[in-house]
Amino acid sequence: MQQSSPGPRDRLVYTAVQHLRQHGVTATGLRGLVADAAAPWGSLRHYFPGGKDQLVTEALGWAGSFAASRVEAYLQSAASPTPSGLFADMVQAWVRDLEKRSYARGCPVAAAVVDSADTSETIRCAAAQALEQWRAPLVRGLLTVGVPADRATDLATLMLCSLEGAVIMARAARTVEPLHTVQRTLGPVLDAEPRSPAGS
Amino acid sequence: MQQSSPGPRDRLVYTAVQHLRQHGVTATGLRGLVADAAAPWGSLRHYFPGGKDQLVTEALGWAGSFAASRVEAYLQSAASPTPSGLFADMVQAWVRDLEKRSYARGCPVAAAVVDSADTSETIRCAAAQALEQWRAPLVRGLLTVGVPADRATDLATLMLCSLEGAVIMARAARTVEPLHTVQRTLGPVLDAEPRSPAGS
Repeated sequence: MQQSSPGPRDRLVYTAVQHLRQHGVTATGLRGLVADAAAPWGSLRHYFPGGKDQLVTEALGWAGSFAASRVEAYLQSAASPTPSGLFADMVQAWVRDLEKRSYARGCPVAAAVVDSADTSETIRCAAAQALEQWRAPLVRGLLTVGVPADRATDLATLMLCSLEGAVIMARAARTVEPLHTVQRTLGPVLDAEPRSPAGS
Repeated sequence: MQQSSPGPRDRLVYTAVQHLRQHGVTATGLRGLVADAAAPWGSLRHYFPGGKDQLVTEALGWAGSFAASRVEAYLQSAASPTPSGLFADMVQAWVRDLEKRSYARGCPVAAAVVDSADTSETIRCAAAQALEQWRAPLVRGLLTVGVPADRATDLATLMLCSLEGAVIMARAARTVEPLHTVQRTLGPVLDAEPRSPAGS
């Protein structure tokens, strides 16, 4: 059975994610976004009666789910998952994306926070939720590979923070070196935690 | 001798920093900025013939210098400077600022990167330079307290990245907890480096 291609609603959400990544919320124009999504203009109001805030909110939810699914994919596919292996997988996905797109696109959640956290409570909450969607499987993953419960949340937060900052530094300097640096420097720290056997 | 109050040029740069911190580049309107700076409208074109790009560039330079001066101040004032003490000083300054301003303002450099790195080469370069202005005294500071040369740059990068990410997470969730977390988690790592006596 052939998988159906995404309809205009899904295309609008996906395109919104990409515009946020490149320009942030304020500089994302709805006309250009609808055109890039190859969606009829009327579909915007039809599917998103709450306007730009609703579209951005759904885009951030999409981004949170996507990031979470990548973490799950690593944990399910790695032969011997480790904290540093999980972090390396996250960092390398960003390295590939930044290099492939010439540093044009960063994290949509960071973009939404810096230009809209203070002006739209809706967008701020959606950003906080997306970060939580991302952090939750990280915490679970660290627990799965044996990191003690009282350390897993702190380490997951440190992984997310250093990755978000490294993406910003990488885009500023147009080099993936900050990403390699945080991976090289934090990886051994993550693995140095005393770990109990998985599942124990 | 009484110190003179800042003139319209300095007020415009300082106010631009604050607007960037709150809204990013695109959402910063020049009319509102000039009004907030209590500067005559004509002073904008007079002092910044290069327009918004020039004003943003100078604002990012100001921010880079300010961040660098804080690092220097810690190194000069601390009785027994340590890597974790330096990081704690940086983190605590952000905790105070976020709490004082109800999370309204983040890092101006991160703001400039996420909404303008792909559209203004001038702003992107200014952001990269501001981050370098900030990292350079961090590297020097780590060397001063005895961190080996082959580790100082990596650790300075990790400090900056985790701090930038923590500010974003803090603004999203309106809690300083991510900042406390990176300080608590990274501090011991920074101090665990084998260190030679200062100046040796």
